[in-house]
Amino acid sequence: MKTSSYAAQSATSPLAPHTIERRELRPDDVGIEILYCGVCHSDLHMARNDWGRAMYPVVPGHEIIGRVTAVGPEVIRHKVGDHVAVGCFVDSCQHCDQCHQGNEHMCREILTETYNGRDRLTGETTYGGYSKHIVVKDDFVLRVPEGLDLARAAPLLCAGITTYSPLRTWNAGPGSRVGVVGLGGLGHMAVKLAVGMGAHVTVLSRSKAKEADALALGADRLLDTSDAGALAGAASGFDLIIDTVPVKHDINPYVPLLDIDATLVLVGQLGPLDELFTVPAIMGRRRIAGSMIGGIPETQEMLDFCARQNILPDCEMIRMDQINEAFERMERSDVRYRFVIDMASLPARAG
Amino acid sequence: MKTSSYAAQSATSPLAPHTIERRELRPDDVGIEILYCGVCHSDLHMARNDWGRAMYPVVPGHEIIGRVTAVGPEVIRHKVGDHVAVGCFVDSCQHCDQCHQGNEHMCREILTETYNGRDRLTGETTYGGYSKHIVVKDDFVLRVPEGLDLARAAPLLCAGITTYSPLRTWNAGPGSRVGVVGLGGLGHMAVKLAVGMGAHVTVLSRSKAKEADALALGADRLLDTSDAGALAGAASGFDLIIDTVPVKHDINPYVPLLDIDATLVLVGQLGPLDELFTVPAIMGRRRIAGSMIGGIPETQEMLDFCARQNILPDCEMIRMDQINEAFERMERSDVRYRFVIDMASLPARAG
Repeated sequence: MKTSSYAAQSATSPLAPHTIERRELRPDDVGIEILYCGVCHSDLHMARNDWGRAMYPVVPGHEIIGRVTAVGPEVIRHKVGDHVAVGCFVDSCQHCDQCHQGNEHMCREILTETYNGRDRLTGETTYGGYSKHIVVKDDFVLRVPEGLDLARAAPLLCAGITTYSPLRTWNAGPGSRVGVVGLGGLGHMAVKLAVGMGAHVTVLSRSKAKEADALALGADRLLDTSDAGALAGAASGFDLIIDTVPVKHDINPYVPLLDIDATLVLVGQLGPLDELFTVPAIMGRRRIAGSMIGGIPETQEMLDFCARQNILPDCEMIRMDQINEAFERMERSDVRYRFVIDMASLPARAG
Repeated sequence: MKTSSYAAQSATSPLAPHTIERRELRPDDVGIEILYCGVCHSDLHMARNDWGRAMYPVVPGHEIIGRVTAVGPEVIRHKVGDHVAVGCFVDSCQHCDQCHQGNEHMCREILTETYNGRDRLTGETTYGGYSKHIVVKDDFVLRVPEGLDLARAAPLLCAGITTYSPLRTWNAGPGSRVGVVGLGGLGHMAVKLAVGMGAHVTVLSRSKAKEADALALGADRLLDTSDAGALAGAASGFDLIIDTVPVKHDINPYVPLLDIDATLVLVGQLGPLDELFTVPAIMGRRRIAGSMIGGIPETQEMLDFCARQNILPDCEMIRMDQINEAFERMERSDVRYRFVIDMASLPARAG
């Protein structure tokens, strides 16, 4: 079927209306009408070919909330009318050790990205959620639990799971001392999720100016990392620090804040960090790790957890035709904390 | 009592004979005649004040093997005539969580170093194993198990435990795939210990030239890290990599060699590393950690393990008066793999 979308035709062209073809349902496919789609920084990077691997046209969007409109005969998980969600990937090999463990995001044969990926059967480019409809394999479609606000749930599919997964992997819970570096789309979710898990949550920031925001999100306190005395006083004071900063930066101030055997998890920056001094890590057996989204079972667990705890991102709703302006504002960090596109604003036939 | 030693009197003076005072035995002290002392790179760094905190005279040496000559009335672990060992520290607070867990090396109130430390009661500078006698608190004296070669055992107290501890912490054992970077004093012990634990061991080296050495130490193979094809073929192939390189270097080639959730442990370099690129860590939830020596129970476990498995460092025996030459050779990496001083070569009254 043909469906309307917004696409980048080149690295320099703004997103604009574009008609794409969605495949006919395979036996295990779910057809979805997209209701809401979150706007992730990756969308901007891919549209502008910042990573050098864009395949145009690029239809971004991997924080998708929708309604099932059709199912193939072998679909067992979803039925017409269900509210469902799709995250950053739409397929994986499904036979490697990682897929068997529910770590499809670390599939040995590489996941199929929701957009700018290649369909595993046909090799065709995948198109994301800045569109009216999408067709996704049953196993990669998530259930939106009752009571979860549909509009605001969208960013959970990337910003939510990216922070939920390390909190779970490194056992955040009641009594654990969690630090969050960076208070953007990812960071604000890290705070809310860690608070929801019962952790004692500190926002680490170079300025006291974000204190009110941090507390409003539920954090217990803000630690001003430009204050050498405050830093020294917080030494060995964290069981886990989630660093969401998406640019090259210096992680050396954070390592001594970790307790013995504790971990700093990088989820923001895809690229270089400043020189690392090893002494604090060596002296306290401290650890630095990376983490990326999560697998399908963990993503479902996260959605269920957010519904139970009423945890939702802070969102600013936009129309589809405001996306280029939203990209510009996102670049200036002028959003609290995530844009969500209301797909009712996209005509069924745009192109 | 007065005893003979070799000491550095300043950052620029060679080690030379020097008489030091050892304290009278406290109730829980063990008096030890030193038989052998290993020569660690730290000895050279401290003697030359490379870390800016030397307190002269510096009597180095923290790989000590000796015989008990006297015990205080409250000593319960050792008796006169026993063969014993002393490692990198001789005291700790003994009441913090880490000490209670047997992690005295990560004592919250900081361990007391065997040399260039400060006695916790008197504040006097501690003197190390380049001496004829030493007095150490019972709890910090290790038992040398029957059958362990006394001369060659000395380097186990630092080089041995520094590599044994991360192998145990990160669960090296039968079937695990362990990589070792750097084939010096630490690296050659990492190979022997990992082989002894039943792991499949690979030496990672920039040149094939070390292959014969690696295999002679028991490694299963050498991976030439200057060969891009070999590196790519080894991707995700390690459960644990121990990096013993003691200078600034680039760890980026090693991270993609880790399997998902696997760890690169830094034990050599105390200082900066080159810029770290985060993508391999983020994509595979890979981890980078530090580790330093080990606690008293684990050090005893290591000595017992080495005795059972007949694992010993490769040593070159020297006389005490050859120490300055040994330092020079160590700086050129001209030692396979560790110098050990035969303390019979030090007259009882040297100074």
